Order: sequence, then structure tokens, then C-alpha cells
Amino acid sequence: MSDATPPSDQPAEGDATPPASDRVRLRRKPVRGRHDPETINAIIDAALIGVISFVQDGQPYGIPTNVWREGDRLYWHASAGARLLRAASGNPVCVTLHHVDALVLARSATNHSVNYRSVVVLGTAHMVTDAAHAEHALEGLIESIYPGRWAQLRPMTEKERKETGVMYVDLAEASAKVRDEGAHDNEGDETWPVWAGVIPVATKHGAPEPDEFVQPGTPEPVVRVR
Amino acid sequence: MSDATPPSDQPAEGDATPPASDRVRLRRKPVRGRHDPETINAIIDAALIGVISFVQDGQPYGIPTNVWREGDRLYWHASAGARLLRAASGNPVCVTLHHVDALVLARSATNHSVNYRSVVVLGTAHMVTDAAHAEHALEGLIESIYPGRWAQLRPMTEKERKETGVMYVDLAEASAKVRDEGAHDNEGDETWPVWAGVIPVATKHGAPEPDEFVQPGTPEPVVRVR
Repeated sequence: MSDATPPSDQPAEGDATPPASDRVRLRRKPVRGRHDPETINAIIDAALIGVISFVQDGQPYGIPTNVWREGDRLYWHASAGARLLRAASGNPVCVTLHHVDALVLARSATNHSVNYRSVVVLGTAHMVTDAAHAEHALEGLIESIYPGRWAQLRPMTEKERKETGVMYVDLAEASAKVRDEGAHDNEGDETWPVWAGVIPVATKHGAPEPDEFVQPGTPEPVVRVR
Repeated sequence: MSDATPPSDQPAEGDATPPASDRVRLRRKPVRGRHDPETINAIIDAALIGVISFVQDGQPYGIPTNVWREGDRLYWHASAGARLLRAASGNPVCVTLHHVDALVLARSATNHSVNYRSVVVLGTAHMVTDAAHAEHALEGLIESIYPGRWAQLRPMTEKERKETGVMYVDLAEASAKVRDEGAHDNEGDETWPVWAGVIPVATKHGAPEPDEFVQPGTPEPVVRVR
């Protein structure tokens, strides 16, 4: 995810919003940085999985899991009592999401790159302790992927609620990074006789495969997230 | 990435290899754990991006970047002097890779899941200081994505080499986690009138888009990784 475009000290023209903190300010390629909530939220809302990084005994752990957004909070869940929850609760975490949009092939190794959208969120992990808040958040998880599905499901039991831990981090300290362009070859490299350009990458859904109990005529689910 | 299948204290039948350490032993769903190098390496080799987690001033950071494997080492690179390299060098890191293979829809919220393959690697980040080692590793990056391409490229210059920092972590302490099955509904939920089953998810490449300098007849690149 790097290429040899010279680092620019200037933020992107479209990035009028300053970084929320020095910790999320892009140092190497500020031209790729985005700090406006619209861009950050759109990248989060398109993502199914985030990596939750936390520290335990000085060792960082990065655990991939479902993440979803509700307003200015980013949520995840796990089995109540999971290490991911116990170790993160009340402590600093980082949530990282990324989408790969294209492979970028140049005529030199250094100028190869990847088009991507990524978000990094820094903050403190908060355990949701209120049962209604937790259930509302879990509804948000289902709805973030399958709009309209929550109301169609067999309702959650008290036992299921208690077995599920829900956490969130505020989106106050977040930054996005976006690359969306072709290859940048060094001047003079254009005539080097090798293919260069962009190969789009996309996530696709296959045909839904119903289980053996689905009755004929049951509508297929709507899926929002790729 | 969770569902309500009851946690099992038993490892998977096919997982004859014990965890490399207690830190990478799966506690919640050991039945999904894999510790054999073949499984771990295959998941790594299919991945383009990994999230490198490191700690700075007590704050974990998870940075997505290209990762690739050479034998029993996992490599990444960045601009020489990048925070990712400076903060990680000589320190504990975690590298996390994941692939989403399917959405799994059940008749209750709790039993929804995702089919996935993921790897978590714990270790110390080592900066590559030998120039030949670094260049060989960078060749490995290009070849891991585009087999045969390195020899076709305009050779790397001394300046480019010096501007690129290469790091690795040993794969000695790694574990994989795999879910690859349908929905598990609670007994009695099978008749609940909502669609349930699996929606496959796959990463696809679009048609290559050459830049303006590619001459007619130039072969398109071979791409290994999805």
C-alpha cells in the first residue's frame, strides 16, 4: 500500500477538516488523509469486519470481528467474558478497517501500489452495561448488514442477551486514508516495455444458498454491506 | 464473526498440531483453531493486506499494509522512517489477516455468523538491515502478487532501496481460525418463517485497465493473490 509518489506536506484539497489529534494526523502522505465524518462514516458503513487492537501484558493483539456504526460510535461484540472484551474494557484500543479497490501496477517495483479506503479509530473501549442499549446495538449489527431483518427474526432471549458482550469506541479520534488513482511512474520509465495500469478489485456475493428448512416462496434477504 | 454454537473445549479433529504458545491458544471456540503451518501459510499466501498492530505510549495502533511470506517469516514494508517501522522495530507486534468467505444467516440474531479464514501472528518486529536481504524481500513482495513480474520491471535503484524499509516477524507464534459451515439454528427455530442459509462472498478482479503508455500486444500481468 505504498508507492513512490513524493510525500506531500499539504493535506488533500477536499480535506477541509483538520485531524482530530496529532495521533491520527497522517505524516507520510497527508495528501491521502481525510478527516471529515462523511468520508470516515462511509468507509465504516461499507465494512463488515474491523480489526480491534488492544494491549495485554505489553503485547498488542489484533482481532478481526464484525463492527458497525451507530451515530458517532463504533460497536463490536463477542461472547461475554471473551478476552477481546475483558482485555479491552476501559483501555485504549485501535479499530482498523480497510477496503481494497484496485491493484496498481507500475513499471518499477517501488511505484506499485494499491487503491484502498481505510479508517483508523483510536479511543477507549467501553463495555455496554445497560441491557436495552446492548439489545438496541445488536439490532444495529443485524440491520447494518441486512436491512429490515431484525423484525423478521425469532426474538432474542434473555439468555442470549446475557451471553453476548457489546463494546464501543467513540469516533471522536478517527482518520481515513484513501488512494484512488492510477500508477505514477518515474519520468523516463513510460517506455519500459511492461504492462502498467490498474486492476479493479471488488467483493461480490454469490447466489444465496438456503438451508434445508427454508420454505418455497420465502423472500431472499436484502444485504447492504459488501 | 460469532455465533451461538456452544464453545467446545476440544480442538478440531484435523488440528493435530498444538498451539505454539498459550497466547495463541483459542479459548472460546478451539474447534475453529488451526495450528499447522500448512493451514496458516495458505491463509497468509492468499492475503494481500495484513493489519500490523504495535504499541506506542501505551496506545495500540493497527495499520493495514501489504504483507507477504518468505519461508517462516512474514514481511511488510513502508517508507524508511515511517512511524510503522520506527515504533515497531524491536518491539512486540501482532499481524492479523482475514478473508471473508460467506455471510451466514440464521433464524435468530445470535446464530448469525460469518465464514472466514484468519491468522494472528505474535512476535518481535525485526528491521532488515542487509541491503541484499531487503531487495530479495521486495522481490518476494512483487512475486507474491504478480509471479514472474520482478524480472520484467525497470530495476530498483540504490535510492529507491534506501527509501524503503523492510520488516519481518517470525511465524513461530501464529494461529489460524477458520469457520466454514452453514447456519446452526437452535432446536425448534427451524420452522421460524425467515430465510436462512449462506451467501458466498468472494473477491473478484475486474478487467485490467492499461495506462496510456502500454503498447499494443504487451502481455497482461499474471495476478496470483485475490
